[in-house]
Amino acid sequence: MVRDGCSQWLEADGPEKDVVVSSRVRLARNLAGYPFVHKARADEREQIIEVVRGVLNGIGGDIGTGSRESGGGVEWVDLCELPKLERGLLVERHLISKQHSKGSQPRGVAVSSSDESLSIMVNEEDHLRIQVLQPGIALDNALEEIGRVDDHIEAQLDIAYSPRFGYLTACPTNVGTGLRVSAMLHLPGLRLSGEIEKVRKAAKAMNIAVRGFYGEGSDVAGDFYQLSNQVTLGKSEQDILGSFAGQFLPDIVEYERSARRSMLDSRRLVVEDQVFRALGTLTHARQLKADEVLDLLSYLRFGVCTGVIDMPLDVVGKLVLLTQPSHLQRLCGARLDQAERRVERACLVRKTLSEAGV
Amino acid sequence: MVRDGCSQWLEADGPEKDVVVSSRVRLARNLAGYPFVHKARADEREQIIEVVRGVLNGIGGDIGTGSRESGGGVEWVDLCELPKLERGLLVERHLISKQHSKGSQPRGVAVSSSDESLSIMVNEEDHLRIQVLQPGIALDNALEEIGRVDDHIEAQLDIAYSPRFGYLTACPTNVGTGLRVSAMLHLPGLRLSGEIEKVRKAAKAMNIAVRGFYGEGSDVAGDFYQLSNQVTLGKSEQDILGSFAGQFLPDIVEYERSARRSMLDSRRLVVEDQVFRALGTLTHARQLKADEVLDLLSYLRFGVCTGVIDMPLDVVGKLVLLTQPSHLQRLCGARLDQAERRVERACLVRKTLSEAGV
Repeated sequence: MVRDGCSQWLEADGPEKDVVVSSRVRLARNLAGYPFVHKARADEREQIIEVVRGVLNGIGGDIGTGSRESGGGVEWVDLCELPKLERGLLVERHLISKQHSKGSQPRGVAVSSSDESLSIMVNEEDHLRIQVLQPGIALDNALEEIGRVDDHIEAQLDIAYSPRFGYLTACPTNVGTGLRVSAMLHLPGLRLSGEIEKVRKAAKAMNIAVRGFYGEGSDVAGDFYQLSNQVTLGKSEQDILGSFAGQFLPDIVEYERSARRSMLDSRRLVVEDQVFRALGTLTHARQLKADEVLDLLSYLRFGVCTGVIDMPLDVVGKLVLLTQPSHLQRLCGARLDQAERRVERACLVRKTLSEAGV
Repeated sequence: MVRDGCSQWLEADGPEKDVVVSSRVRLARNLAGYPFVHKARADEREQIIEVVRGVLNGIGGDIGTGSRESGGGVEWVDLCELPKLERGLLVERHLISKQHSKGSQPRGVAVSSSDESLSIMVNEEDHLRIQVLQPGIALDNALEEIGRVDDHIEAQLDIAYSPRFGYLTACPTNVGTGLRVSAMLHLPGLRLSGEIEKVRKAAKAMNIAVRGFYGEGSDVAGDFYQLSNQVTLGKSEQDILGSFAGQFLPDIVEYERSARRSMLDSRRLVVEDQVFRALGTLTHARQLKADEVLDLLSYLRFGVCTGVIDMPLDVVGKLVLLTQPSHLQRLCGARLDQAERRVERACLVRKTLSEAGV
């Protein structure tokens, strides 16, 4: 299912791809008549899985295609049976959360097999966590798509809903629409110009969370920032989308572009030097740490987006994904310890960049 | 006179070139009947120059050829007339000292025009400072050569000499033979393995001074260490040469080689990574500071000498020389400020390494 070197959201071209890596919407849903996941017994969890799997068939063909081409259906993955390395692949492709990859309780995920844009985690924090992930800035489109999936599911299942509060969820922060919209932004310009703190403050004032490359609890690495709404209760889906995608995101995109322009105008030499040094290290190092490679690839992405380096942007996206530990081990076809991964990571980067002609 | 990109001692192959960059001997001599330089009036200095220039003619053809091929004669350079940039070139080529390049008093230098292996500074600290510089470890050879030059000069000039103390010099540390022998060593193995302090201690115990790339008062850069004898009084030339070249130097050479071998045996990956990262920075940076380039070239030299990188060693030597400020400006044909030099330095390094096929 996981195709080597291909995760559509990270590699494909998308609107505003120079700043917005990907857009994500997710809905938290729970089946009425079952305890929340953390209160459910193993047999209840099994039942939940069975119920959900019963309605997955219709998804993918008609449902979940949206504006993009999409092949047939979703594929079910039983996470209890899946080896650790394969679970790691799903985390790195942002198809399941870290928490969902761990543990031994019955749980799984359904993934759209064509492009991995849709994933439905079952028995994560809520019974259902439906996610649509798209390259670039595409929240309207993603919301439309996830709406179709949700409609399909709700037409067949009894979902926990309160007329007063809205959708009921395991954690109160998700009650209401159960909607979280987020975007993965690449903000090297604002970080290098020292203005990233202003973004953090503006985000805080608007109840927007700023997280790292792997969402909740992860550190910022490689200038990748995941921004998402915090409040779901008492707001409509359009309210949430409007203030985030309609106002905040376009402002940040313009702010980042302006920082890049101003750096290139006033300090082109410094920027070029940093970008090319990063390229020099990437093309020559014999061992690369996971954090370091993200930082170096960030400079490379910055260089490509600003025209300093001439190479396809999707090569950078591909490297961001393939240099992660699980992907690396999958590519090598062997379990590797940390030291071995650093060597293989450096090999992969040199080979990929050499093939890309840089 | 100063041929672009060519300083024989730094570029040519020499014995033990992997560790010993160059060997140098110098004699301090003073004319009898004239005050020492720091006590001499301008007209006396002029007279000293005139006297010395009168005996330079015979040097170079027969004298000063030693074992190596050598073209005709020495060339006289009046340092008062020479522009600052050109004086800088002579300093960077180790043909005159920094002190000698400064000031406004009558002074000059005679340089063997074929290979720059011989230089005679006039009115530096002493009336005459005769120097022979050779690539690799070649102190015996250099001593033989400088002896011929000294014999030629002493046959025609009355040199200040005391039967009790030996040759008289402006500074008591040079009284006696007036001989200083030194070697420029490249010791990346001992520095990286943390054993360089032992060398310093051993040197101190043997009255051997450890200095940087530009001798007295200069910092160590790029793992280049200039080692020289401290004591000249009460010792014969053969005593000095024997303990330094016969005992201390070969020990250090073996110590450095053993450090390199042991690093490559036990930490080959780390070494290769450091060497290739340095190469990556050298081939990609858009600006390079003078200190940084020496450090990076040191890794490169280390890589070439240990077989990690396949390229001619003389390219590294050439870069060590040509990236110095005066050479860089001479190559560019313009006075450059520090920022401009960093850019031109990076350009030169990229171009040179690209031409060398690395």
